[in-house]
Amino acid sequence: MARKILVVGAGKSTAYLMDYLLEKSGTENLHLTIGDLHPEEISSEISSHPACTVKQLDIFDETARRKEIEASDVVVSMLPARFHFQVAEDCLNYGKHLITASYVSKEIKELDKKAKEKGLVFMNEIGLDPGIDHMSAMQAIDNIRAKGGKMLLFETFTGGLVAPESDNNLWNYKFTWNPRNVVLAGQGGAAKFIQEGSYKYIPYHKLFRRTEFMEIEGYGTFEGYANRDSLNYREAYGLNEALTLYRGTMRRIGFSKAWNMFVQLGMTDDSYSIENSEGMSYREYVNLFLPYSPTDSVELKLRHYLKIDQDDIMWLKLVELNLFDPNKTIQLKNATPAQMLQKILEDSWTLAEDEKDMIVMYHKFGYEVNGKKEQLDANMVVLGENRTYTAMAKTVGLPVAIATLLILNKKITTPGVQIPTKKEVYDPILAELKKLGVGFKEFKVPYLGYNPDSVAG
Amino acid sequence: MARKILVVGAGKSTAYLMDYLLEKSGTENLHLTIGDLHPEEISSEISSHPACTVKQLDIFDETARRKEIEASDVVVSMLPARFHFQVAEDCLNYGKHLITASYVSKEIKELDKKAKEKGLVFMNEIGLDPGIDHMSAMQAIDNIRAKGGKMLLFETFTGGLVAPESDNNLWNYKFTWNPRNVVLAGQGGAAKFIQEGSYKYIPYHKLFRRTEFMEIEGYGTFEGYANRDSLNYREAYGLNEALTLYRGTMRRIGFSKAWNMFVQLGMTDDSYSIENSEGMSYREYVNLFLPYSPTDSVELKLRHYLKIDQDDIMWLKLVELNLFDPNKTIQLKNATPAQMLQKILEDSWTLAEDEKDMIVMYHKFGYEVNGKKEQLDANMVVLGENRTYTAMAKTVGLPVAIATLLILNKKITTPGVQIPTKKEVYDPILAELKKLGVGFKEFKVPYLGYNPDSVAG
Repeated sequence: MARKILVVGAGKSTAYLMDYLLEKSGTENLHLTIGDLHPEEISSEISSHPACTVKQLDIFDETARRKEIEASDVVVSMLPARFHFQVAEDCLNYGKHLITASYVSKEIKELDKKAKEKGLVFMNEIGLDPGIDHMSAMQAIDNIRAKGGKMLLFETFTGGLVAPESDNNLWNYKFTWNPRNVVLAGQGGAAKFIQEGSYKYIPYHKLFRRTEFMEIEGYGTFEGYANRDSLNYREAYGLNEALTLYRGTMRRIGFSKAWNMFVQLGMTDDSYSIENSEGMSYREYVNLFLPYSPTDSVELKLRHYLKIDQDDIMWLKLVELNLFDPNKTIQLKNATPAQMLQKILEDSWTLAEDEKDMIVMYHKFGYEVNGKKEQLDANMVVLGENRTYTAMAKTVGLPVAIATLLILNKKITTPGVQIPTKKEVYDPILAELKKLGVGFKEFKVPYLGYNPDSVAG
Repeated sequence: MARKILVVGAGKSTAYLMDYLLEKSGTENLHLTIGDLHPEEISSEISSHPACTVKQLDIFDETARRKEIEASDVVVSMLPARFHFQVAEDCLNYGKHLITASYVSKEIKELDKKAKEKGLVFMNEIGLDPGIDHMSAMQAIDNIRAKGGKMLLFETFTGGLVAPESDNNLWNYKFTWNPRNVVLAGQGGAAKFIQEGSYKYIPYHKLFRRTEFMEIEGYGTFEGYANRDSLNYREAYGLNEALTLYRGTMRRIGFSKAWNMFVQLGMTDDSYSIENSEGMSYREYVNLFLPYSPTDSVELKLRHYLKIDQDDIMWLKLVELNLFDPNKTIQLKNATPAQMLQKILEDSWTLAEDEKDMIVMYHKFGYEVNGKKEQLDANMVVLGENRTYTAMAKTVGLPVAIATLLILNKKITTPGVQIPTKKEVYDPILAELKKLGVGFKEFKVPYLGYNPDSVAG
């Protein structure tokens, strides 16, 4: 009898995940059941595959959910993170392994002991970011340590961007994932990191003005801004000795400086609603955040407020978004400034049918070995094929699929609630990813860190 | 038998309150009972007065609290706002009037019906701000309406500042009230107001760069920054027709631009703790918010980050606070950036024994009467006498004391939970305040508003 894989939730990131498992269904003797609230949205290539069954499944229908989980050998949850817990509890009850691409929540973490007792693998954070970042970083770090190296610096940046051939606006950016997360990025507390042993804190309103640059051969220059609390890596990767820990989000050069205009104006605020938002023109929306004047134009007030010179490309970026259009209106009731901004951006930043996305990841590893300081940089570029087979879907879905098969084949056996930082996990997954075109280029660079001459700071 | 006034809580603002009531104790046949957790801190001039009894009272000791409330004729609560509710409930049970200087909380508001049923006056927001601002504004607005005027504009600004003779630092500012509130001022959501019918929103990180100027004859120029949600006045003052509503905080010119440096750096953030805060030098504290460099000085990094020219007075303001001192240390464990900043500022901004504070208030009333637009401005300046008899204590304590006596004498009788916006309340209180040196100067100015030529905005 075929081994049964249940995938609950078939969202944007599952095309490659399904294809990978279905392609292996013959040699590996697999049957895939996809349970989704809207099964009609699943492509016929997948649903008509002989090794695949598609079912309508409401995750809140306890009876149906439990029936499917009980009947499976391993469960993959691609639901939004907040819905994993019920699935995880059922997996525990029926003795099934579980794979998700989401951050480990506090509730899921508390299932660790029970999962271990039952010998179950609850693998989380095994998508792109978190996921490929964990695996590639830990492989490099473990290699460095195996050579007797001591970690000094770890920096990691990831970006979901538009492929060069589809990169045709002044922002060098389009939405390739959840737009809301892009608009709210960086909110919810100061960014925290450590550089050469010095703690650093950046408030939200300065975040997009404290970027770092990095180069990827053949793809040009990128920038990175700090992403939340980089100190988390100390525990997760055992990097207590490292003097520099920095996690960031990658964008094309100039994006952050331009995005900062929205932050400064207050347009990314999601904490209050605008009463009369429905039917408000883009121009009126902009004017909400500018001083009143009976005569001065919205344009001049904005230029003056943000100190934008007449010939500054920042200005053209705003014009490109039709921000000053008095005729385009926002069709949202009682919306927050952030929701209204998202609508405006979606007008301009939605990928066209034939356009492609791109994933970039960049790691820096600084270390000391035999009394010498060295640095290894590694980067990965993945290009999407079209709007379904995106680089995002590939880099999120393939690690999940590969891990699922490895767990089913008892190649990954260490039980418990975990993230993919163990050799048992990252070695075979990274090797398989490489074969599928998802791999890193590594190169030695002179160690610089932030204090090349070891001056007392 | 003397009529009994119970005052619970004898904090900073009660010197004038007590003196006023004790001075009237003979002619008005009053006895004052002060219930406080630390009665030893009450001056002997007050505690030895024959018409005064001082008792130790723990507000959480239900039996003791109820006994005192039951024995009184009227109750004044000068406790922190969050402790009023228990007192208010007891007042309801024992049928006593209640006076507080605090904002009406949701819980207190819910007692309105019961208070009315029992014929009890629960008077709130009867200090300075809220308090004198409500009364003086409503008196002017009611006068304008009595002449057939239609309100177009209402702006109101209040500031707790240092008296000119004690104004000897570059910030023209010292703490004359709760320093924590000053450090956190403006946080907790965008400022909201309306100008000439246009809604305007200012995010926190721009708040201190959107000031207005105003002049007080004999006292020079002041500035005002927007204070929270000015739209609340529409309901409270019945100002639905007004095109401009703006409430602000007053400072000396240049304060806000300088304070903005702290905001931009992230020093006013109260949302996270700095692990190693205890023993951190002022200089190290500043460096937390600046990019890492092994060689560049904290000074130059800050100048560059905030774009402060070599000869900018902004710079001298920072130096005056010893911000770059490597030897002065912060003695606070696990403190937030805001708590640490407060400590540093208290070093420099604490009033000396012989120094005096100053309260300023400024109202603008724009209106149309007989087809003509007119404007009335009104301002009040109150100077403190010393560190006990402060202008703050005077302007908070006297309205409370006067209201208490008026309620006791049945001059204020309308029952229910209220704020002092009724003629019955503001007329006698403002008249008595004027006699005590707390009054407004009014003067007509040409109506300008923000759209003097009625241009379509």
